[in-house]
Amino acid sequence: MDELDPYVLRPIGVVRSTLRARADAPNQAFEGAPEALLEIDAAFADALHRVQPGDELILLTWLHLADRDVLQTHPTGNTNIPLTGVFRTRSPDRPNPIGVHRVTVTTIEGPTTLRVRALEAIDGTPIIDLKIAMRESPEA
Amino acid sequence: MDELDPYVLRPIGVVRSTLRARADAPNQAFEGAPEALLEIDAAFADALHRVQPGDELILLTWLHLADRDVLQTHPTGNTNIPLTGVFRTRSPDRPNPIGVHRVTVTTIEGPTTLRVRALEAIDGTPIIDLKIAMRESPEA
Repeated sequence: MDELDPYVLRPIGVVRSTLRARADAPNQAFEGAPEALLEIDAAFADALHRVQPGDELILLTWLHLADRDVLQTHPTGNTNIPLTGVFRTRSPDRPNPIGVHRVTVTTIEGPTTLRVRALEAIDGTPIIDLKIAMRESPEA
Repeated sequence: MDELDPYVLRPIGVVRSTLRARADAPNQAFEGAPEALLEIDAAFADALHRVQPGDELILLTWLHLADRDVLQTHPTGNTNIPLTGVFRTRSPDRPNPIGVHRVTVTTIEGPTTLRVRALEAIDGTPIIDLKIAMRESPEA
């Protein structure tokens, strides 16, 4: 299938966080994740126009420490749960390891730096996209 | 920054839909999007293990018709809304055009084919990831 031809993903920025290792990161943001900085590359300053404190954003990251060859896992690492296909889990280990996070902008720290809460991604995680979250949308 | 080095994204499947052109697609799934088929490549069959009807999944797509050079837009194409950075919109036109969709599995049509509702992506859109949606998660 032509549709399976590869694409090149160019990160737009990087996460700065007090979380330094995968073992330190909570599985989900609501499990006590801290504030973090989103440092966006200056080339994309125009794409942040009108972003303001209080905005809820969908943040997509590239989980760069993930193992892309894993197809099945015990969810949350609990071996009492049967092996499950990674497409039915939230495991970071998967063929295209993209993290989906909902965050709230707390302060604008610079022309292309946003402080957000709460984010379970570790320091140095590449950022690949930001979108406004929609209350009306079941996805949001 | 090393974190801005590119990554290679390999689609895992393709959307089959009655929506054939970008102009036909609703802006959001809740605006009358139809059912669609997710045809996953056979190489990833194991990653679908335990996916079943009723599952709510977060589907990530590569919006292959998008213009990756667009940094600002009038949201929903309405010129009465001021120009806004694409990172504060849901425009498909953006540096890394990844679509985030919440869908429900209605039937398993084959070993690697799922029927889902409701999906605003057009026929031929590459699929890049699937995850289970979490009720507990504010992102869901």
